Amino acid sequence: MDNHEVTIRSVDFSTGVISPSYRVLRRTLREIAPIFWDQEAAKSILQAEGDRLIYEVHVTEIPESIEHLPFCTTIIYPGCVGEEYHMTKGHFHSQRQRAEIYLGLSGKGALLIQNEEGEVRMIEMEKGTIGYVPPGWAHRTVNTGEEPFIFFAVYPGDAGHDYKTIEEQGFARRLFKDQHGPRLVESPNWRK
Amino acid sequence: MDNHEVTIRSVDFSTGVISPSYRVLRRTLREIAPIFWDQEAAKSILQAEGDRLIYEVHVTEIPESIEHLPFCTTIIYPGCVGEEYHMTKGHFHSQRQRAEIYLGLSGKGALLIQNEEGEVRMIEMEKGTIGYVPPGWAHRTVNTGEEPFIFFAVYPGDAGHDYKTIEEQGFARRLFKDQHGPRLVESPNWRK
Repeated sequence: MDNHEVTIRSVDFSTGVISPSYRVLRRTLREIAPIFWDQEAAKSILQAEGDRLIYEVHVTEIPESIEHLPFCTTIIYPGCVGEEYHMTKGHFHSQRQRAEIYLGLSGKGALLIQNEEGEVRMIEMEKGTIGYVPPGWAHRTVNTGEEPFIFFAVYPGDAGHDYKTIEEQGFARRLFKDQHGPRLVESPNWRK
Repeated sequence: MDNHEVTIRSVDFSTGVISPSYRVLRRTLREIAPIFWDQEAAKSILQAEGDRLIYEVHVTEIPESIEHLPFCTTIIYPGCVGEEYHMTKGHFHSQRQRAEIYLGLSGKGALLIQNEEGEVRMIEMEKGTIGYVPPGWAHRTVNTGEEPFIFFAVYPGDAGHDYKTIEEQGFARRLFKDQHGPRLVESPNWRK
C-alpha cells in the first residue's frame, strides 16, 4: 500500500460488510469439518445440505508488516454441528507475543482463548464487548446465539497466523449447547 | 498486565464510555487553547465560560509495549473556537512507521492526517467509518457535527506519542466552519 493512497472504508455494524470490499474468505463445513467433535453429525449435515457456510471473514489489502494494523470483520452464522456451536478454526499468532482485539458489533458469541499449557478462558461477547486476546494465547470465536455473530478485529501486522498448532492439538475445551445455554466442557480429544 | 488476568470490557457506542473504567483524560480549552487559530476567541470563551471541555479520552491499563494493542475511545464535544471546530491536539507516533485505526461510533467528524512534508488528507467520519492512519502520518480529529463525535482507536503498543512536533509546527491545514459546512484551509501559521 502506498502511504499516499488513503482508502476510506466503512463497516456496517449490522451485517459486518466492509465497503469498499476487498476479499471475503468463506469457511464451509466441508472444509473445516475436522474441528468439530461430532464427526457423524458433520457427515449427516453434508449429506443432507450438500455443504454449509459456517463463517466468513471480510479482509482488506492492509499489508501484514510491523508498521501496519490489518483489520477484518468476521460473521459466524448461527447453528450447531451436533451439539457444538458453529465456530472458527482458531489460531495462535506465529509471533506468539502479539495481542489481538475483537469488538462485538452484533449477535451473541464467545471468544475462547487458550495458552500453550491448554488453559482456556471464555469471554462472552455481544455488541460493544471488547475481547482482548493477550499475547501468547490462541483464539477461537463461537456463535452462541440465534443470529449471526459479528465482530471487528485488529491485529499487529507482524503477528502472523499459526493455524497448524490448533489443527493438530485442538482446544482443550469445547463449547456445547445444552438446554440451559452454552456449556464449556473438557475436550476428550485434546492433543490427540 | 498479567497474561493470566483477562479483563472483559465493553464500550457503549452511544456515549463512548468504556466499562470497567480505568482512566479518563480530559482536555479543556484552558490547556489546549494554543492549538486554535483564533486566540482572541479562545480568550473570550475562557472569560465568559471559565473553561470548556473540548474532548476526553477513555484509556485502559493495556501496557504500551510491542506485544500489546492499547485502545481507547475519544469523545470530542461539539462547538467552535471562533470559526474553528473543536479538535484534538494531534500527534505523530514517536516510532514514525506505526499505523493507527479509528472506528467511528457516533456523531460526525473528520480525521486529518499529515505527513512530514505537510501534506494533509481529510477523512470524513461517522458511525462505521474506518479511518486508517497510515504509518508516518500525524493525526488529529475534529468534531464537525452538532453532537459528540465518538470513535474507538487501536494503536500498536510500541508506537509512542510525539505531541511536541505538532505543538511546535501545527497542522498545515485547519478545519473551519462556514455557512456550507466544513472548509479545509491552509494554516497561515504552519511551521511558524
